[in-house]
Amino acid sequence: MTAKTLAIGNYNDTDAAALEHDLDAKRVSSLDEALALDDAAREAVTAIAYMGHAAFGGDAMDAFPNLGLIANFGVGYDAIDVDAASARDIALTNTPDVLNDDVADLAVAMLLMQGRRMRQGDELVRSGRWADGESFPLNRKMSGAKVGILGLGRIGHDIANRLAAFKMDLHYWSRSEKDTPGWTYHADPMDLARAVDVLVIALVGGPETENMVNAAMLDALGKDGVVINISRGTTVDEGALLDALEAGRIAGAGLDVFVGEPKVDPRFYKLDQVVLQPHQGSGTVETRAAMGQLQRDNVAAFHEGKPLLTRVN
Amino acid sequence: MTAKTLAIGNYNDTDAAALEHDLDAKRVSSLDEALALDDAAREAVTAIAYMGHAAFGGDAMDAFPNLGLIANFGVGYDAIDVDAASARDIALTNTPDVLNDDVADLAVAMLLMQGRRMRQGDELVRSGRWADGESFPLNRKMSGAKVGILGLGRIGHDIANRLAAFKMDLHYWSRSEKDTPGWTYHADPMDLARAVDVLVIALVGGPETENMVNAAMLDALGKDGVVINISRGTTVDEGALLDALEAGRIAGAGLDVFVGEPKVDPRFYKLDQVVLQPHQGSGTVETRAAMGQLQRDNVAAFHEGKPLLTRVN
Repeated sequence: MTAKTLAIGNYNDTDAAALEHDLDAKRVSSLDEALALDDAAREAVTAIAYMGHAAFGGDAMDAFPNLGLIANFGVGYDAIDVDAASARDIALTNTPDVLNDDVADLAVAMLLMQGRRMRQGDELVRSGRWADGESFPLNRKMSGAKVGILGLGRIGHDIANRLAAFKMDLHYWSRSEKDTPGWTYHADPMDLARAVDVLVIALVGGPETENMVNAAMLDALGKDGVVINISRGTTVDEGALLDALEAGRIAGAGLDVFVGEPKVDPRFYKLDQVVLQPHQGSGTVETRAAMGQLQRDNVAAFHEGKPLLTRVN
Repeated sequence: MTAKTLAIGNYNDTDAAALEHDLDAKRVSSLDEALALDDAAREAVTAIAYMGHAAFGGDAMDAFPNLGLIANFGVGYDAIDVDAASARDIALTNTPDVLNDDVADLAVAMLLMQGRRMRQGDELVRSGRWADGESFPLNRKMSGAKVGILGLGRIGHDIANRLAAFKMDLHYWSRSEKDTPGWTYHADPMDLARAVDVLVIALVGGPETENMVNAAMLDALGKDGVVINISRGTTVDEGALLDALEAGRIAGAGLDVFVGEPKVDPRFYKLDQVVLQPHQGSGTVETRAAMGQLQRDNVAAFHEGKPLLTRVN
C-alpha cells in the first residue's frame, strides 16, 4: 500500500482511527520508522501528519521527494525546521488557538497551587497529620499580585485575561506594545522581571527564545519571585533556575515544560516549592480532539487543493 | 489584673502582641479556659475577641455578666449563638470582605486542580515515573464548564467573577435573584445541581444550611459532577458525599472544610479524585493580618463608644 498521507507519532485510538478512515493514512510511531520505509512508500507521501518532539530537518524532508505538507499536531513547531520546509516548498501547519484555554487554565492553576501550597495542604490532610493536630502555615495572598507575562501572544493574552479577574497588577513584555486594558508594557524583559513577583513565560520556543530567562533575569525577579512556565523548557536556563531555587534566590516555580522532557532533571524532584506538571498544558480530551481534527482538516484541504487553515510558513 | 478585653483563641504572635499592646487584652487559649477564670476577672470583661470553632452559647455568655461585645475572628460566626447574644444585648461582629479574595482564589484553584488532576501530575513527575516513560491520561477541559454557585453572597460573587474569566457558563442559587451579568438563576437548588457539572458551595454555615447538599442533590449533579466546598463542612451531608464519591456517582470534589475538622473522616484519605485542603481559605499572611486588625478595630470602637464596623446582630 502506498498512502499519500503518512501519520507519524503516538496518536490516541480516536485520532488513529480518524487518520485511517478519513485520510487513508499510513501510520508509523516515529520519524525514524518513517525514514525506514521503502522508496515506493516514501515517494507516495505528499502529506505528513506529524506528532512529536523529534527534530524534523531538511535531510528527513528530502527522504520524501513529493512532500508538500507537514501538518503539525500542536501549536509549537520548534521541532520542525521551518526554513528547510520553506526552501523545499513544503507547507507547514500547526494547531493554534484550540488549545489556548487549556494552557491558560493550567498556567493560572499552577500559579495558585504554588502560592497557596496546595500540594502540601492536600498531603497534610490526606496523611492524617492535620487530624492529629499539625497546623498549616499561612501562605501568600495571590489576588492582587504583580504578575508579568513574558510573551503576550494569544496564549499570554488568555492567561492575562484570567489573571485580571483575580485583580492582579498586570505587566508584560512582547516584541511590540499591545493595545491592552491598563496593563503595563516593558520594552526590556529585565525591567519586567524587576517589576513583578510572578513571571509567567508564554514565549514561543525555538532558537530566538532559548535561555531567555537566565540567571540575571531570575535575580531581577528576586527572592519573592515565582516563575511559571507553560511554553517550552528551552526558554529557561534550567541550570540557573535550579541554582536559584535551591539557593532560595527565588521563591518557587510552576513548570509544565522541561529541557529534554520527559527526562526531567532529578534536582527538581526534591524542590518542595515547585509545582511540577507532565507537559499537560493542552492535555484534555476535548482539546486534543480539536487539535486532531484541525490537523486532519489541514491535510484534507491540502489534498483537495483548498487553502490551508492554519499555515505558518 | 482585671482586663476589660479578653482574647480567646490561638492567635499568631503578631496578633497576640497587638491584642496586648493596643487593647491591653488578657489572653486565654480556649473558651473553657476563659470560663475557668475567677469571678473578678470574668466580671471585668466587657469585650471578647473570639477565635475558634467551639460552640459559644448563652450559658457561656452568662459567665461574663458585663459582656457587651463578641468580636469574632472570621466571617463565619456559626459557632456563636447569635440569638442568645442578641437576647443579652451583646453585640456580635465578624471580619467580612477582607478574606473574600483568598477564599475565592482557593475555590477556583481547587476546581482547576481537581479537573486537571494536578496533584497526580506533580506526583507523576516528582516520582520519576514520567521520566521513565509513564504517560499522563488526558483530563477534562475546565474553561467553558457549566458551574453552579450555591449561595451568591459576597464570596460566591467573587468566585463567579473569577470563573467568568474562564468563559464558564455560570448558574447560581440564592435566596433571591441577583442583578448579574448573564448568569442563570435557579430558584430551586435541585434545579441548579441538575443544570451544572461543577457545584461550588458558598453558603453561610449554621442550622439553616445544614446538610443542604444531600444525597438527592448529589444524584442530580450526576456522575460527571464535581463538588467544591469552601463554606462549612456542615453544608454537606458528608456521609452521602463519601458514598457518592466511593461509588462513582459523582466525579470528584475539592474540599477545604469538613464536619468535625480537623478530625477528617479517614474515608476521604483514599479518594484519588478529591482535592483536600486544611481549611486554609483565608490562610494567607496578608489576609489574616487584615482580619486581626478588623477584629481589634471593632473592639476599640466598642470601648470608645463609636459605631461598630461590622456588626451582624
